[in-house]
Amino acid sequence: MSIQITFPDGNVRQYDAGVTALDVARSISEGLARNVLVANINGQLRDLTTAITMDATINFVKWDDEDGKSTFWHSSAHLMAEAVEELFPEAKFWVGPPLKSPAGFYYDIDLGDKKISEDDLLKLEALMKDKAKANSAYIRKEIPKAEAVAYFTEKGDQYKLDLLTNLEDGNISLYTQGGFTDLCRGPHIPNTGLIKAIKLTNIAGAYWKGDVNNKQLTRIYGVTFPSQKELDAHLALLEEAKKRDHRKLGKELGIFTFNDDIGQGLPLWMPNGAIVIEELERLAKETEDDADYKRVVTPHIAKENLYLTSGHLPYYADSMYPPMELDGEKYYLKAMNCPHHHKIFDAEHRSYKELPLRLAEYGTCYRYEQSGELFGLMRVRCLHMNDAHIYCTREQFAQEFRAVNEMYIKYFKIFGVEKYVMRLSLHDPAKLGKKYIDEPELWLETEQMVREVLIESNIPFVEVQDEGAFYGPKIDVQIWSAIGREFTLATNQVDFAQGRRFKLSFTNANNEPEVPLIIHRAPLGTHERFIGFLLEHYAGKFPLWLNPRQVTILPISDKFMDYCKDVQKRLKKAGIRVAIDDRNEKIGKKIREAELGRSSYMLVIGEKEMTEGKAAVRKQGKGDIGVKTIEEIITDFKYEIEERLSNE
Amino acid sequence: MSIQITFPDGNVRQYDAGVTALDVARSISEGLARNVLVANINGQLRDLTTAITMDATINFVKWDDEDGKSTFWHSSAHLMAEAVEELFPEAKFWVGPPLKSPAGFYYDIDLGDKKISEDDLLKLEALMKDKAKANSAYIRKEIPKAEAVAYFTEKGDQYKLDLLTNLEDGNISLYTQGGFTDLCRGPHIPNTGLIKAIKLTNIAGAYWKGDVNNKQLTRIYGVTFPSQKELDAHLALLEEAKKRDHRKLGKELGIFTFNDDIGQGLPLWMPNGAIVIEELERLAKETEDDADYKRVVTPHIAKENLYLTSGHLPYYADSMYPPMELDGEKYYLKAMNCPHHHKIFDAEHRSYKELPLRLAEYGTCYRYEQSGELFGLMRVRCLHMNDAHIYCTREQFAQEFRAVNEMYIKYFKIFGVEKYVMRLSLHDPAKLGKKYIDEPELWLETEQMVREVLIESNIPFVEVQDEGAFYGPKIDVQIWSAIGREFTLATNQVDFAQGRRFKLSFTNANNEPEVPLIIHRAPLGTHERFIGFLLEHYAGKFPLWLNPRQVTILPISDKFMDYCKDVQKRLKKAGIRVAIDDRNEKIGKKIREAELGRSSYMLVIGEKEMTEGKAAVRKQGKGDIGVKTIEEIITDFKYEIEERLSNE
Repeated sequence: MSIQITFPDGNVRQYDAGVTALDVARSISEGLARNVLVANINGQLRDLTTAITMDATINFVKWDDEDGKSTFWHSSAHLMAEAVEELFPEAKFWVGPPLKSPAGFYYDIDLGDKKISEDDLLKLEALMKDKAKANSAYIRKEIPKAEAVAYFTEKGDQYKLDLLTNLEDGNISLYTQGGFTDLCRGPHIPNTGLIKAIKLTNIAGAYWKGDVNNKQLTRIYGVTFPSQKELDAHLALLEEAKKRDHRKLGKELGIFTFNDDIGQGLPLWMPNGAIVIEELERLAKETEDDADYKRVVTPHIAKENLYLTSGHLPYYADSMYPPMELDGEKYYLKAMNCPHHHKIFDAEHRSYKELPLRLAEYGTCYRYEQSGELFGLMRVRCLHMNDAHIYCTREQFAQEFRAVNEMYIKYFKIFGVEKYVMRLSLHDPAKLGKKYIDEPELWLETEQMVREVLIESNIPFVEVQDEGAFYGPKIDVQIWSAIGREFTLATNQVDFAQGRRFKLSFTNANNEPEVPLIIHRAPLGTHERFIGFLLEHYAGKFPLWLNPRQVTILPISDKFMDYCKDVQKRLKKAGIRVAIDDRNEKIGKKIREAELGRSSYMLVIGEKEMTEGKAAVRKQGKGDIGVKTIEEIITDFKYEIEERLSNE
Repeated sequence: MSIQITFPDGNVRQYDAGVTALDVARSISEGLARNVLVANINGQLRDLTTAITMDATINFVKWDDEDGKSTFWHSSAHLMAEAVEELFPEAKFWVGPPLKSPAGFYYDIDLGDKKISEDDLLKLEALMKDKAKANSAYIRKEIPKAEAVAYFTEKGDQYKLDLLTNLEDGNISLYTQGGFTDLCRGPHIPNTGLIKAIKLTNIAGAYWKGDVNNKQLTRIYGVTFPSQKELDAHLALLEEAKKRDHRKLGKELGIFTFNDDIGQGLPLWMPNGAIVIEELERLAKETEDDADYKRVVTPHIAKENLYLTSGHLPYYADSMYPPMELDGEKYYLKAMNCPHHHKIFDAEHRSYKELPLRLAEYGTCYRYEQSGELFGLMRVRCLHMNDAHIYCTREQFAQEFRAVNEMYIKYFKIFGVEKYVMRLSLHDPAKLGKKYIDEPELWLETEQMVREVLIESNIPFVEVQDEGAFYGPKIDVQIWSAIGREFTLATNQVDFAQGRRFKLSFTNANNEPEVPLIIHRAPLGTHERFIGFLLEHYAGKFPLWLNPRQVTILPISDKFMDYCKDVQKRLKKAGIRVAIDDRNEKIGKKIREAELGRSSYMLVIGEKEMTEGKAAVRKQGKGDIGVKTIEEIITDFKYEIEERLSNE
């Protein structure tokens, strides 16, 4: 019998029924067969050895794909378990999942009364490498549940038995590679030989099922790659990310601090952090002024009724701070700025002539995050948000949305963000009126408008079904730092529900009341996350315009202090941030420390420079760039600042 | 027998025992005797007819003095009561106190079943004028309490009897002028003839003793003056103040609004208000940058412990918002920024080389005011404060304090505040360790330093005993608006307690830990009160740099729209806020409405202006000031903005 296989590009080919996915890959090219890790058959991930018996769609998944990495790491966890079982025969295994890229995998293991050491990790790694070279196949076997229970009972494996009790009756799958068999849904890569590079990274304790009353298991973390080159690059990245850790840099550079008496997740911005905030806000204000935004300032609290109207209460209550009772009413810290802005829209009668009305505010919101989830500036409870709400007509929507995207891209250029993706979350027509506001036409219309704008503007994007917000399509913006780490920066939303909930309206050209569409946007996200991102992205070496430590003057000796102070005064007058290192230290040490303090420029001043009214200019990371007059220096620096140039 | 009278200038004169205060005044000059209203004898206000029988200090109180006005208006309330009793014989009188200048006085009266009309007010006014001209003396009579009770019982006056029950046994004083006698502690002016100008201003209802369960009395308000000229000036001021009411102007000019769902006392700043805020903050930042302040940004909440350390809890709890319970701990909205700043001081090891360290923030604080006390922007619950804390050594204190005062005066010049007074509140040595921190030397030293700086800097100030803050001398700054109304703008405090409470320290030159002195200062007060003040002060006509509506372009017809848009673009590019009135209206109407909208400049554009690349410039309130090229206009406006010039 012959079946039809449909490929992602729409091509259809005929195969004999029972053909395996790997056979199909091989029929296309040997190269594909070598690189494919797993197959997506009819929307489900399957082993490459799966026999296809009916017409099907197929999509070959390789390493580049997140699903490819997941499968690869899942198989690697089995390989590690095999090595562990050999080294610790009494070991019992709980679960061993893959992690989100680039984190690898772990396995939680009960080692009985044994302890595992760092040395053991090296032994395990060596053993895994041997077993990988043996190129064992991952073999799937389906057996009745009862048979599986008998198998693990005989093995005395209470952990797998516990997992089995939660599985439905019927067939259960086991996977075996080499001498190791595990209860597992799969899928897996074809064989261990694909795992060319292995690094076990960490040992930690983990309570069984995450419950502190249970036994503590040993969690071993690892990461594997299809080549040593990729592993090396990964380890170098980790090393670099550690150096660029925003918490470490934030402390070293005087950007922010936390204090127990203030509270968790509530950063105090130190003077250097406040400068970065101020420069970012100046950029945002200038950009928004140019785009005819109007600024507003709103309080940080509001009465319960505001959030009942918006619909945030009671559903979002867990993410908000608890209320304060005052004059017999409940007040909440605001977790978002929109309802306040809607009230400003509503404070005056609005005509279509005023639209689009763009209300902007670097508003500070407070959200409750579990204390265990707080992380530096990345997960906080206080958020200074680059917020704005655009109230417009349906006719104006596409143009407004395009302008918002252009603003994002303008910012990406300024900050040297080269890789970004917009993730467009759509509605599901089957869930209208339930998960999604019941406006079928508006959904289709705005989704199509958003899609067209993204395509026209050449913005890379992916579409995701059934992940829209209740009130309209949502666009998450993901960016990658200079060392290739991914950050979700900001969300951009179309909203056709809030206007109605807040009874907002404007008088249209026909003199009738009409509800405006609303765009929520925050291209720079929050100061907290964005500055955290920038610290890593720049490794603390902010471009001149953004750098709290723009210039450091380094006198070779005290004799030149008066001249240095005069130079400082002149630079300061020109709006340049400039300090003098007046310590009685060797010039080499002063230079090193100014570099380490991430000063963008150093002006070294000795006898010759003073006599000639000049300074020897050193640039961060570049060394000496020549002796210049103070006028030249000021002109150059001012240009670099005003144009917001990056560090080359 | 002869007694010694000591005068405020230290002079001492001999008089016969039993001399009256008025005799003493007359012995100095007839002019003084004519103008004096009441005497301060040994620190107590007394009638001028008081006989002085022992050595005493005396200070004559005239109209210019707040005590003089109070006594004058208290006597006027009695005069009004006399007129009321004549017109409404059944009237019973509760209390009739004077109000704080310039408000006059009122009397709460039970008119039985009678109602009082606006016409009656005119009749009462006429009657009071007659009685004033009769020049009756205010005669004091002291009688035993029992006799007073008998007198008012016979009169059937339950109100005075109620007052009497709360008075101690012993002698009670009654005052009689003309045909009216009142239970009264006094003192009073010598006679009704001094009351030359009378205006009854208002009738209101007032529950007896302020309790809604009691009978509602009739409250009649009035104000009186020693001359008609002063009354006329007062009424003109009221009229002008009404026109300049910041609540009215704030709405008309789109500065701020309130909303029930946000909450009482929580202004929403509309786009024009946000512009004023932004300009004020820019001024503050520039000024503070020049003075080497460092900016910080802190959250709006903190844990209970922070306020227990600062001492605000539990004592200040009534003025704070109630706590939010989170993770088993209490969080409070911050009512002041100091504790947060202290934690930033404390986040790093500090050396004397870093002092003075000046931490500045336009911090937003939340304070609970009773809803009945809220008033426009003047009494609010959300305060954007022009805050900074200066950490310094004792040696640095005087210079820092002087610099702070100079900053105040610099601001007063910019805003055209011509009248201001600093009110220096001192400690009471008898209350050290109780009301005041027990640092006798530091008190004397800093008070003396503050005093010297104020004298040296030629700043008008008054000293007030026993009104200092717990932690140091306090300087309240009072300013007067262009129409002569008084505002308490800001407080400037010396603090030698918080440093210790927060265990702040720096390493001094001897390498020992030392606690810094702290200066709290906020020269521009809060945005709320300061912008409220500015609205009245400028009658909404902000100077160009501060004006949200800097320039309005008025095309004479549609034909010139392209040119107008080009002019707009050029001005906007130069950083000038500019709108076009593109309505199809007569130019006269457009000019009137731009004036009313408080635009600083109007550019009228017709055929001739367009052809010549010019515009006809009109200035707010000044009319046509000539035709200029667009370059000239931009140059002139930019200069006026950058120099922050006032409206001439």
